[in-house]
Amino acid sequence: MKVSLKFRRCHCVSKVARHRAQIERARILFRIGKDFRGWLNPTPLDTIYQRHRPQSLKRGNPMPLTMYTLSIPVFTRGFSALGGLLDKAEAFAVESGMPLDELFNARLAPDMLPLSGQIQRASDTSKNAIARLTTLEVPRFPDDEQSFADLRARIAKTVAFFETVTPENLDGSEQREVILNFPNLKVNFSGSDYLLKFALPNFYFHVTTAYDILRHKGVPIGKADFIGGLD
Amino acid sequence: MKVSLKFRRCHCVSKVARHRAQIERARILFRIGKDFRGWLNPTPLDTIYQRHRPQSLKRGNPMPLTMYTLSIPVFTRGFSALGGLLDKAEAFAVESGMPLDELFNARLAPDMLPLSGQIQRASDTSKNAIARLTTLEVPRFPDDEQSFADLRARIAKTVAFFETVTPENLDGSEQREVILNFPNLKVNFSGSDYLLKFALPNFYFHVTTAYDILRHKGVPIGKADFIGGLD
Repeated sequence: MKVSLKFRRCHCVSKVARHRAQIERARILFRIGKDFRGWLNPTPLDTIYQRHRPQSLKRGNPMPLTMYTLSIPVFTRGFSALGGLLDKAEAFAVESGMPLDELFNARLAPDMLPLSGQIQRASDTSKNAIARLTTLEVPRFPDDEQSFADLRARIAKTVAFFETVTPENLDGSEQREVILNFPNLKVNFSGSDYLLKFALPNFYFHVTTAYDILRHKGVPIGKADFIGGLD
Repeated sequence: MKVSLKFRRCHCVSKVARHRAQIERARILFRIGKDFRGWLNPTPLDTIYQRHRPQSLKRGNPMPLTMYTLSIPVFTRGFSALGGLLDKAEAFAVESGMPLDELFNARLAPDMLPLSGQIQRASDTSKNAIARLTTLEVPRFPDDEQSFADLRARIAKTVAFFETVTPENLDGSEQREVILNFPNLKVNFSGSDYLLKFALPNFYFHVTTAYDILRHKGVPIGKADFIGGLD
């Protein structure tokens, strides 16, 4: 799948792969009753920022402000952060003995969506934004995720779709009419209004709430895990 | 103060004022032991969207994508939503008998900032972004808020500053060098990278977390309260 190829080209992949391998190793040691703690090293803040040191100034190309740069890279960065949060949640489950299902189903209020639902809505909010701003055929996902592996697959499928979107697909979309139907109400947006006032706040809402849920459950994550890659 | 004048011009002000008066009336009735419930009517979702029906398509002017439109109106809308959340939190405190201080100090994890801290950081993140992207003198606030009234004043002072910022102040700021110093690390951004990858995610983080804290404490708020005004 395209997404994994891209990850492979990134210089961060070895650290991500090593991190996952550490978790797997820790899980096996835990199962056979051995000490697994040495395999779970939290990544310090400065290492994360070092890894993601932005290159743009060196290249002398500040990011232009377009409907593309305001959507696709923002969404992709958000999903990259969500993937990292899932890694740390899994490591925490191994270390603390908390069942992964407890994190999967954790929520901040009885009538709020759980962690799984926040990731599903982040996926829908972002890909539906592209559906509304372009003429592209956007994949539908049935919200049938049952495990962390399923959530990772949902993230990968969503990001894989974003990799097929080109800046040209979003050309002129700031003027496109976007109509949202609420109960008893139809709201008309211009494309740029829709992106800035509705789609982006909604997307950040779900990424932040996923973070907040994990933080509330005691997963050792910090702001750097939310901000994610700065490259 | 400029901000209150602007609120006065907005057609929403009468509803906001009425809402506050209702809370005040409910509080007095509560103190003298009378039934106050009739004075606290939650605002239905469609009414909120009706109130904030966007006008941009009718005006035929989709919002241009500039460093100004991506920052000042985004921040101002976020603070407007935060103000609305404080109103509903206060109404909930009256109705439920929960001390306001409990909401003021509520947090999602022992080492996370409480509600008050989230609003202080939303204020700092946004005004510091303008400090880094312009040559303007930006006000400093000492984080000495002790009450909901103080938090409202902090929001009003922050928004009042944003009202002094013009699109011209941010002209060319996408190319401005922004340097952030983390422990043992200096990160160089272009202005647009800094806004898109750091300032905006951080701002949304604190607004969402304020919402999540109140939702976790049982305050009856919904997504429309987070998205806020669409006009």
